[in-house]
Amino acid sequence: MAKVKKTPRPKAETPKGFRDYFGAEVTERAEMLQKIAGVYHHYGFEALESSAVETVEALGKFLPDVDRPNEGVFAWQEDDSDWVALRYDLTAPLARVYAQFRNDLPTPYRRFAMGPVWRNEKPGPGRYRQFYQCDADTVGAASVAADAEICAMLSDTLETVGIPRGDYLVRVNNRKVLNGVLETMGLSDDAQRDAVLRTIDKFDKVGEAGVRELLGKGRLDASGAYIDGVGLSDDQAAPVVAFLTSKGVNAAKTLSNLRDAIGSSVVGADGVNELETMAELFAAGGYDATRIDIDPSVVRGLGYYTGPVFEAELTFEIFDEKGRKRQFGSVSGGGRYDDLVKRFTGQEVPATGVSIGVDRLLAALREKGRLNSQATGPVVVTVMDRDRMSDYQAIVAELRNAGIRSEVYLGNPKNFGNQLKYADKRNSPIAIIEGGDEKAQGIIQIKDLILGAQIAENATLEEWKERPSQFTVPRADLVAKVREILDSQST
Amino acid sequence: MAKVKKTPRPKAETPKGFRDYFGAEVTERAEMLQKIAGVYHHYGFEALESSAVETVEALGKFLPDVDRPNEGVFAWQEDDSDWVALRYDLTAPLARVYAQFRNDLPTPYRRFAMGPVWRNEKPGPGRYRQFYQCDADTVGAASVAADAEICAMLSDTLETVGIPRGDYLVRVNNRKVLNGVLETMGLSDDAQRDAVLRTIDKFDKVGEAGVRELLGKGRLDASGAYIDGVGLSDDQAAPVVAFLTSKGVNAAKTLSNLRDAIGSSVVGADGVNELETMAELFAAGGYDATRIDIDPSVVRGLGYYTGPVFEAELTFEIFDEKGRKRQFGSVSGGGRYDDLVKRFTGQEVPATGVSIGVDRLLAALREKGRLNSQATGPVVVTVMDRDRMSDYQAIVAELRNAGIRSEVYLGNPKNFGNQLKYADKRNSPIAIIEGGDEKAQGIIQIKDLILGAQIAENATLEEWKERPSQFTVPRADLVAKVREILDSQST
Repeated sequence: MAKVKKTPRPKAETPKGFRDYFGAEVTERAEMLQKIAGVYHHYGFEALESSAVETVEALGKFLPDVDRPNEGVFAWQEDDSDWVALRYDLTAPLARVYAQFRNDLPTPYRRFAMGPVWRNEKPGPGRYRQFYQCDADTVGAASVAADAEICAMLSDTLETVGIPRGDYLVRVNNRKVLNGVLETMGLSDDAQRDAVLRTIDKFDKVGEAGVRELLGKGRLDASGAYIDGVGLSDDQAAPVVAFLTSKGVNAAKTLSNLRDAIGSSVVGADGVNELETMAELFAAGGYDATRIDIDPSVVRGLGYYTGPVFEAELTFEIFDEKGRKRQFGSVSGGGRYDDLVKRFTGQEVPATGVSIGVDRLLAALREKGRLNSQATGPVVVTVMDRDRMSDYQAIVAELRNAGIRSEVYLGNPKNFGNQLKYADKRNSPIAIIEGGDEKAQGIIQIKDLILGAQIAENATLEEWKERPSQFTVPRADLVAKVREILDSQST
Repeated sequence: MAKVKKTPRPKAETPKGFRDYFGAEVTERAEMLQKIAGVYHHYGFEALESSAVETVEALGKFLPDVDRPNEGVFAWQEDDSDWVALRYDLTAPLARVYAQFRNDLPTPYRRFAMGPVWRNEKPGPGRYRQFYQCDADTVGAASVAADAEICAMLSDTLETVGIPRGDYLVRVNNRKVLNGVLETMGLSDDAQRDAVLRTIDKFDKVGEAGVRELLGKGRLDASGAYIDGVGLSDDQAAPVVAFLTSKGVNAAKTLSNLRDAIGSSVVGADGVNELETMAELFAAGGYDATRIDIDPSVVRGLGYYTGPVFEAELTFEIFDEKGRKRQFGSVSGGGRYDDLVKRFTGQEVPATGVSIGVDRLLAALREKGRLNSQATGPVVVTVMDRDRMSDYQAIVAELRNAGIRSEVYLGNPKNFGNQLKYADKRNSPIAIIEGGDEKAQGIIQIKDLILGAQIAENATLEEWKERPSQFTVPRADLVAKVREILDSQST
């Protein structure tokens, strides 16, 4: 007789490259995003939550072919119909939504969006295939007042979530100025132009001297490899270096340095004028150079954006994995881009926007000790007598009604040690104990678990006697005593 | 010469069955979910956000085959590897997460989760392929104290989001009681048993008389079709009818009716005892029968759950699409279920939980007028002179710093009418106007757009003169006057 083959049990595993978030990880992010949404809303931006799924036709960038449908995005074919995919960012859906609803939406359209996006990429350490983005964009406003507003909003946002003034800086540059510099240099060869752009991208890493070498003959890498240069003479390279290093003691000096770097280029002058206008708007709004600054050394995104480019850096120092001090670095970037909806409508619509790196900003807040609100677990009401669940229910209802986060132990109450282990695992500040004797006497026991843990670790016997961590109080004083202990713990 | 074929423009369309959410739709939902999360957290529940993607092996239910991979879920195959899919609910991921992390998680594990889920189903009116769920479950607690806690939490939640006491009722039933009734009836034939279960499911629709007919010979449908009955005699059907109609004037009477209906069934007695214990716990927590009630006529989910079953109904009346009055109905349901993680580990783990219908609850709050916080747009500072953007920027910064949601008009300022049309589209309460003359005189104009619209619609000329909707005030009084108008608008 053939044996009945048992179906093997499924594996309980998060899919590769994905992760789950527990407790404070979720609530801390939710609280941060809520604060950010509050600032965006205050600035007149409206929330948009587009569907997680888009047609690949609308997404555009990562058109899957049938052989490798999953290149870049997670895509699948609808029954005998279109290919659809999970959104890989929040900008492509904005373009689709604006094109689709442009007659109903106000113009300019200020919108913010926050939510997960998905990338079908090789997962790596700390690199996941699903992560949060948090964007604000203004569509249909050609004026750099829109860019300036977003920079101001970014500054307000960082302060609102808990990055103190002085610990961050929003730095602003402009792609048109770079275009002016390139024009002045007379680089007519597109390949050479692209090579210069790629070199500028490395300015953050290799610094002024490195860029000089890479624009010229080449450079010996830190790894020992020799990187060929663009092949410009020192004179030819000078305007680019002048551009990157034109930051002066104040905005006026920076702008004057930039005017020197662009020579007689019209587009360059346009870019410098835009920066000047933005500097005026920052000043008018009360954003001084300690919060937002014109800084031509900002190169991230210069290749992608078409006008103003901005980046928010956190300037306080942390220790990296090798124990070396370094600045925390960038948590947000953005700028002005063209062709947002042109793909759909043929009509050019100017747009500018910013994206906040949710996970990096959360890490920064953790670093600054701004995220400890959720660390404490609930008060645990232990169960001494399983037939008296109603009594314990009444206790916990009383605590909850008094605004104290609390719960009854709901596992098997037989082993009291397990209940305390549970309270420990929950990070509970307090355990409540009411046995039959206590009940008869109208009293209740309250165990300060945090003090108890401290005493167990450090105290001498005398101290232990002096500072008991368990208190017996009249039943009627329960809430007052719990409050007193919670207050003492939080100071 | 062959013409260069132009790529056709992509269509800007939300994929079929999906939708986008704008402005208040997003923020109102976010605010409601945040309040719900607050209550859940207060009860000791911990947030969990699992990945949107699961292996189909872990999802289990909707295993796709290669021919129809998209049956029920949105699924795709990883490169030469596993099939994965978007989660279709929040319970299957909970099972996977608990099985995967059970050694690190506390037991019992109270968790809440809120977020989108995806169903690959035929879309219909008001039926989307992506929608929100909001769940709370307790895993690893066999005691009905866990079920009672969830009912109490559900009651608190509804009141917290804005459903007043008296406008809702949490009704509780128990599958074991029904099992006892079936046992007492001596239905040994599984097919007949299933037919009885299916009939009970229709109780909400057809009522007592209808159930009697359907348990007996059959029934003439409202559509005129004759539905065959289960074929029981009136005597045989009596216990089921007694069960469904056993609701008495109070919990004690209901429980006594149920004891009659179950006869000598042990599992039935177990079920009635569970209901009795829950009734005691509700009383101990201060939840009287106007908030949570034992009600054996709750049949939704009785086929799925294994112990206590609960449902939250909104009892206030609304007008349906045909203009008839009816109760708003169910917004939440839940109960106790087995085998949550057994699929993965072989070990039986008891669990109980509740799911709130996010969209229905939002609709209910809208019905009750509890969702108007976000309806008003920002104050719009108009641009009379594009060279004075700094002045307008200073005005808006002043308003924002005073806590007033506001923005500068960022479109082309040439046509002032367009600016007022924009303010109208934004639902702006107030427009600010500062031309060159006003600037020179140190004054500013403030236009009450809401009063203006009212006057334009209703007022006689005399009233119009008496109640001007546009005010000229000294520039220094800007914030005070704007506040005054906003206050007058909100009363």
